[in-house]
Amino acid sequence: MDRGEKTVGESQTQMTELALPGDSNPLGNILGGRVMHWIDLAAAMAAMRHAGQVAVTASMDRVEFLSPIKVGHVVHLTARLTWVGRTSMEVRVDVESEDMVSGEHNITSTAYLTFVAIGSDGRPVPVPRLVPSSPQEAEEFHAAERRQAERVNNRKMSDRAP
Amino acid sequence: MDRGEKTVGESQTQMTELALPGDSNPLGNILGGRVMHWIDLAAAMAAMRHAGQVAVTASMDRVEFLSPIKVGHVVHLTARLTWVGRTSMEVRVDVESEDMVSGEHNITSTAYLTFVAIGSDGRPVPVPRLVPSSPQEAEEFHAAERRQAERVNNRKMSDRAP
Amino acid sequence: MDRGEKTVGESQTQMTELALPGDSNPLGNILGGRVMHWIDLAAAMAAMRHAGQVAVTASMDRVEFLSPIKVGHVVHLTARLTWVGRTSMEVRVDVESEDMVSGEHNITSTAYLTFVAIGSDGRPVPVPRLVPSSPQEAEEFHAAERRQAERVNNRKMSDRAP
Amino acid sequence: MDRGEKTVGESQTQMTELALPGDSNPLGNILGGRVMHWIDLAAAMAAMRHAGQVAVTASMDRVEFLSPIKVGHVVHLTARLTWVGRTSMEVRVDVESEDMVSGEHNITSTAYLTFVAIGSDGRPVPVPRLVPSSPQEAEEFHAAERRQAERVNNRKMSDRAP
Amino acid sequence: MDRGEKTVGESQTQMTELALPGDSNPLGNILGGRVMHWIDLAAAMAAMRHAGQVAVTASMDRVEFLSPIKVGHVVHLTARLTWVGRTSMEVRVDVESEDMVSGEHNITSTAYLTFVAIGSDGRPVPVPRLVPSSPQEAEEFHAAERRQAERVNNRKMSDRAP
Amino acid sequence: MDRGEKTVGESQTQMTELALPGDSNPLGNILGGRVMHWIDLAAAMAAMRHAGQVAVTASMDRVEFLSPIKVGHVVHLTARLTWVGRTSMEVRVDVESEDMVSGEHNITSTAYLTFVAIGSDGRPVPVPRLVPSSPQEAEEFHAAERRQAERVNNRKMSDRAP
Repeated sequence: MDRGEKTVGESQTQMTELALPGDSNPLGNILGGRVMHWIDLAAAMAAMRHAGQVAVTASMDRVEFLSPIKVGHVVHLTARLTWVGRTSMEVRVDVESEDMVSGEHNITSTAYLTFVAIGSDGRPVPVPRLVPSSPQEAEEFHAAERRQAERVNNRKMSDRAP
Repeated sequence: MDRGEKTVGESQTQMTELALPGDSNPLGNILGGRVMHWIDLAAAMAAMRHAGQVAVTASMDRVEFLSPIKVGHVVHLTARLTWVGRTSMEVRVDVESEDMVSGEHNITSTAYLTFVAIGSDGRPVPVPRLVPSSPQEAEEFHAAERRQAERVNNRKMSDRAP
Repeated sequence: MDRGEKTVGESQTQMTELALPGDSNPLGNILGGRVMHWIDLAAAMAAMRHAGQVAVTASMDRVEFLSPIKVGHVVHLTARLTWVGRTSMEVRVDVESEDMVSGEHNITSTAYLTFVAIGSDGRPVPVPRLVPSSPQEAEEFHAAERRQAERVNNRKMSDRAP
Repeated sequence: MDRGEKTVGESQTQMTELALPGDSNPLGNILGGRVMHWIDLAAAMAAMRHAGQVAVTASMDRVEFLSPIKVGHVVHLTARLTWVGRTSMEVRVDVESEDMVSGEHNITSTAYLTFVAIGSDGRPVPVPRLVPSSPQEAEEFHAAERRQAERVNNRKMSDRAP
Repeated sequence: MDRGEKTVGESQTQMTELALPGDSNPLGNILGGRVMHWIDLAAAMAAMRHAGQVAVTASMDRVEFLSPIKVGHVVHLTARLTWVGRTSMEVRVDVESEDMVSGEHNITSTAYLTFVAIGSDGRPVPVPRLVPSSPQEAEEFHAAERRQAERVNNRKMSDRAP
Repeated sequence: MDRGEKTVGESQTQMTELALPGDSNPLGNILGGRVMHWIDLAAAMAAMRHAGQVAVTASMDRVEFLSPIKVGHVVHLTARLTWVGRTSMEVRVDVESEDMVSGEHNITSTAYLTFVAIGSDGRPVPVPRLVPSSPQEAEEFHAAERRQAERVNNRKMSDRAP
């Protein structure tokens, strides 16, 4: 059966969260782990919407927290697919925080996650091909291919390690 | 001091939530109260972003739940300002659920909420004027003015009731 | 099979919540959405206890937040059935906040919600008749009938809208 | 300054909770720790309402879980003061679960907790005297006095242990 | 079939929690109920790991909160089995709080809970015998036997009460 | 003022979590984001215990989810410091899941996070030196130094990118 195909836009997911006291440390900063939780959720929704299946997180590349998110900030997360293999997908998530009083926006993090689509028997299932529909999306696709090759390579090297 | 002005687009807020088992009843339907919680959060973020201040919920008009949201669905909420008085704002929230397997979308609810901007002393503060930038936004503004007049009227009537 | 009947008192539900920092905005006010969540939960429990079945929220009429609930307040919710159709029920919820230090009580909100009883096949099922057992309960029943007729009427009008 | 006095009824607190899947173990039983959490919350609200102050949990006597609470059950908790010292209070909490389908009620637990009222400087503060207003409340008061003496006694014995 | 046997160390469970604002009262103290929730969770994990089965809380002996846990503290819980009957187990949990700034440690509570292992049919199932592997563990086992006899005795007495 | 020094063992943190239905996807797998949340919490506690200060997450290196964690599993997290600069710290977290029925253990993830200690004015503050007390800890320290140099290098390269 043909896997079909979808554009990046069909699964792009916009999430907005209000930073509340319940997720903060004693200095009023939102905990990094809460932000990672949101990143994974945004990415998972994009991946599942592309796959039309449940998808599970396989990995997250290095992520930095460039500026603190304070209680009362609005947090914007945008997740979009950058690459698709047979059963796996790469999703990019951009995180931005907004100070509602000053209106100031800060880029907080950019993360790349990979997901695998899972059927009801718990095994990987094929997903639709990803169709880039702009030069920028095509470029992201190629950069993602290189990252994916590097990930496979790193894994082989660490398998050989004692 | 002039209150300034903002467009509808400047505070429009897109929220996406994954319906998880922790929010469901024993039949796997997401609880109505969880959806109301999301509606209020989306609306509050739009209101606070317009006001540049903390804003508190003053009321929510009648809301219907037209179709059930099931565990595993993606829930899309869009909040945008429809009307602004001196210290109060009306926000419209549209809720749509998406079945990720079939790709089917269903309109679940439309809600109108009013918020009041609050200063650090706990008292109402003026908010920027709202500038409709399309015929549709202008029409929403007039419909909202009528709703607001009706709300004021209803309150007077209920004040007179025994 | 006869649906049987129950009094208002048999399903009346009293809920008490402590307003905690985890549910507050930066000014220490409890979020409106958290209160709506509690209102729905109280009403759902009353509806399910009357129906002896799972019941899902069909609608909530306009609700106002008349006074702020602060962190540390005790919140009292009372839910009681006001009207019952064949498969649907109306529930009234009264919300009151109590300042434990001053002992002051404030009425915060009154809400009317409708619920539909759902069988294990996901379809509406008949519920026991509601027996008012005081003149006040009988009066509430008639007022609820008028509200229900108005809801049906409004829905027909909005169906006719373009 | 006189501490004043209050009746048992003035602080009696009725809590109702819906047992949801998010609090259950894999067999669909609500976790004991969640029930203890509810017991403490109900008792804390009764204690704080009597004291007109923040109160902190000092101890909970032995508590048994006599019958399992299943997902979908309604849980009723009633907390009422049984005894008051100068700065400390004993609260009794009765827990009952209700199967909404069968209408069956089961007593789940009875717990006795002690609380100490705390002023804004973090130190114990005097609380109003407790006025029993029925023979049953007077009897509970005397039984509580005996439990309190036993607690003081046990503590002395354990202090003497190596 | 033989039940087999396990040492205390095989199921000993170390839990560490960060005390966050979302679990505190207005004075910044962690709620007693949240600590009980943690105690039950730590004990349940130790019991289930010993049993190799789901286990449900049957009782918790009297527990005292000897010193307040403040927001920002680290809470250490250690759960270990002290005694095992045919289908029931006693677990001891020690709770200690740590002020990360001063490095000061305080013993907060010691609790004894009993659990019953439950099969997929909801009925008690036999658990492995507990093998004490030090004089201290053997002593704890005997002290636990005495507590268990006392519990059975107390239950008989309260059964005889009117 | 001298920063002082601490061993790895003084801040090593052991966290154990029970995988509950509230954190799972519809196939009963714990969400990756929940695991990341736990990883960050374990690492933050180790970092704050070493620093004797609040510490905020600066980054998390690539993390893989090697095997699914199912509802009912016990999750073990061990966090220990591997390297310390003047105000920043590297923490390694090992995640293992345990099937309580079969007793089977699976390594799920290994993560390296960096934290920065923050004073009450929101600015970085010096932390105690880290004293490796075994050849393995010394080796980890050197590997961490190389990772840290690589991170600084990558950041310079990405700063130069368009």
